Amino acid sequence: MTTEKVCIIGSGNWGSAIAKIIGRNVSKHAEFSTEVNMWVYEEQVNGRRLTEIINTDHINVKYLPGIKLPENVIAVPDVKAAAANATTLVFVLPHQFIGSICKQLKGTLPPNCKAISLIKGVSVNADGISMISDLISSELDIEVSTLSGANISSEVAEENFCETTIGYRIPEHGHLFKKLFHTEYFHVNIVPDVHGVEMCGALKNVVAIAAGIVDGLKLGNNSKAAIIRIGLMEMKKFSESFLEGVAVETFFESCGVADLTTTCYGGRNRKVAEAFVTTGKPFDVLEKEMLNGQKLQGTITAKEVNEFLSARGLADDFPLFTRVYQVCYENLPAKYITHDIEFVKTPGAARPVTNTAAYFPRL
Amino acid sequence: MTTEKVCIIGSGNWGSAIAKIIGRNVSKHAEFSTEVNMWVYEEQVNGRRLTEIINTDHINVKYLPGIKLPENVIAVPDVKAAAANATTLVFVLPHQFIGSICKQLKGTLPPNCKAISLIKGVSVNADGISMISDLISSELDIEVSTLSGANISSEVAEENFCETTIGYRIPEHGHLFKKLFHTEYFHVNIVPDVHGVEMCGALKNVVAIAAGIVDGLKLGNNSKAAIIRIGLMEMKKFSESFLEGVAVETFFESCGVADLTTTCYGGRNRKVAEAFVTTGKPFDVLEKEMLNGQKLQGTITAKEVNEFLSARGLADDFPLFTRVYQVCYENLPAKYITHDIEFVKTPGAARPVTNTAAYFPRL
Repeated sequence: MTTEKVCIIGSGNWGSAIAKIIGRNVSKHAEFSTEVNMWVYEEQVNGRRLTEIINTDHINVKYLPGIKLPENVIAVPDVKAAAANATTLVFVLPHQFIGSICKQLKGTLPPNCKAISLIKGVSVNADGISMISDLISSELDIEVSTLSGANISSEVAEENFCETTIGYRIPEHGHLFKKLFHTEYFHVNIVPDVHGVEMCGALKNVVAIAAGIVDGLKLGNNSKAAIIRIGLMEMKKFSESFLEGVAVETFFESCGVADLTTTCYGGRNRKVAEAFVTTGKPFDVLEKEMLNGQKLQGTITAKEVNEFLSARGLADDFPLFTRVYQVCYENLPAKYITHDIEFVKTPGAARPVTNTAAYFPRL
Repeated sequence: MTTEKVCIIGSGNWGSAIAKIIGRNVSKHAEFSTEVNMWVYEEQVNGRRLTEIINTDHINVKYLPGIKLPENVIAVPDVKAAAANATTLVFVLPHQFIGSICKQLKGTLPPNCKAISLIKGVSVNADGISMISDLISSELDIEVSTLSGANISSEVAEENFCETTIGYRIPEHGHLFKKLFHTEYFHVNIVPDVHGVEMCGALKNVVAIAAGIVDGLKLGNNSKAAIIRIGLMEMKKFSESFLEGVAVETFFESCGVADLTTTCYGGRNRKVAEAFVTTGKPFDVLEKEMLNGQKLQGTITAKEVNEFLSARGLADDFPLFTRVYQVCYENLPAKYITHDIEFVKTPGAARPVTNTAAYFPRL
């Protein structure tokens, strides 16, 4: 058995909560080297370097204050040094940094290196669908699994019970990652469906916009439940239609029904969409007022998905996704959000499988 | 084409909301006779008979005040007279009345008569499982479909958008009932799975108790989402293990994931279970204080399901259902509600199929 050397790439709120889990688990299981490097984007905090604070106080005071990290998690400011000899990379950083990180790591990794992506974000446009797992895989020429679930970082850090889903292609990777992440309070299920798991994390935000609109309209519990269900079915249909190897079971997992539900009851996409209806202000104004100018993921994804579907003449096959787009971008009055959104199963054979992402053929 | 004569048996809150839909739909579709009888348990309201009020004012002032019923819905106080020549019976009344109603109707129905049950309530004990659809079917010797979904009556009466699920055995019945119930605001999906649809309506209340306990413990969004997901999986596993013809798709329908979700966020089972944790009062006291002495369905069903599972040595295979039972009846501290509840798929072949309900063999 080779010893797995783990490197966590990223140290934000989610990265730090996960570092707490990983630090403990590598000490428990013989497969892993007990020391874990964590790449930290170096910054000064109260006159000290963040890496120094983490390595002496074992707290990420900037992104996860109040939570003790295991002492075997070592903060390293240089990503190449952090990942030197790593056989398992855990990507957990904002997606805009992936390009530069991969450029630095390219050609430096051992041949048995593999990765898992905890990054939410799928890029869809008229040409096709690009998954972040595929992007990393293509850039570094390694196999990449994904992890996604109903996992609000702060609650995971507090060790409140929850579940998550890991999508893998190679069974040994699935089992290894389960050992790396599973704890008594953080239950991991593994499914052989990387793309399904990853796609759920992106599409749920579109459904959350619809759920927020229904809340704003005060349509009640029945309507909200219907929106969530139809949304789940469109997520499933979209994933099954346009990605390879998507499994029905994935949508019953934490990444599917659980993450969707919690995003549609809590979550900022829901909240801003509700305010869109109740205040009448446009989304860009609400983003400034409610999110400090950060962009909402749900509206962007609704637009991207609509471009993709419209380019194929399939917008009517996903009426809920399309209604969200129309309300957000085409001035469709919000009250039409439920108009004609009956979910219609389309036979699989009638759907073109358009794996157009540049990275797909390699996998 | 024979003309379908519809009789609604029951006129409470849900029966009246449904009567509004049925009254309109029979006027729209040529299959149906345009007059619909509704059996009304006769009572005096403000010195007038309830049937007279409904037939002159077209409002059920006692059970659905403020909502106009279609004029082609005729209130009839005698159930035999109401159902005379009826080819389609819609059962929507408290389950304790079924026995006496069936006794009166027995032998009076035309041979092409069929029914649909909107009644929630499954009886489970150590011996087996009895479904209400099977009870009606057996008593009247007619085929019975079921309807269940995320359908709070008052919201349906207000014509807010929602969905529902009809489980059928005979495809023509499924299509006929879809015509009888489907409207622009009340979307009907039909599935060939009577028992799955019916079982969801009973088991969801057990999960809602767990969800309320998690709320009371303030475990947060992740835990709540995990409880709902694991609950859905145990509902699915229970139904697939012990009933015939249950389909995975049923759990994606309104009767499954949608009704479960809304019951776990709203609903009285959730609310009382939350109070159980936050006040420390026992359930029977809370029932008196919060429900006017009405019994909670979730705790009763948890007990019945536990009797059924324990008699077969299978309680550990349904850890969430078992934890709910233990917290409600065996003084297990509420904080253990998430203890060891990891959902484990058990291969179908390893499960005994114990269709022990007296009515099953006939179907």
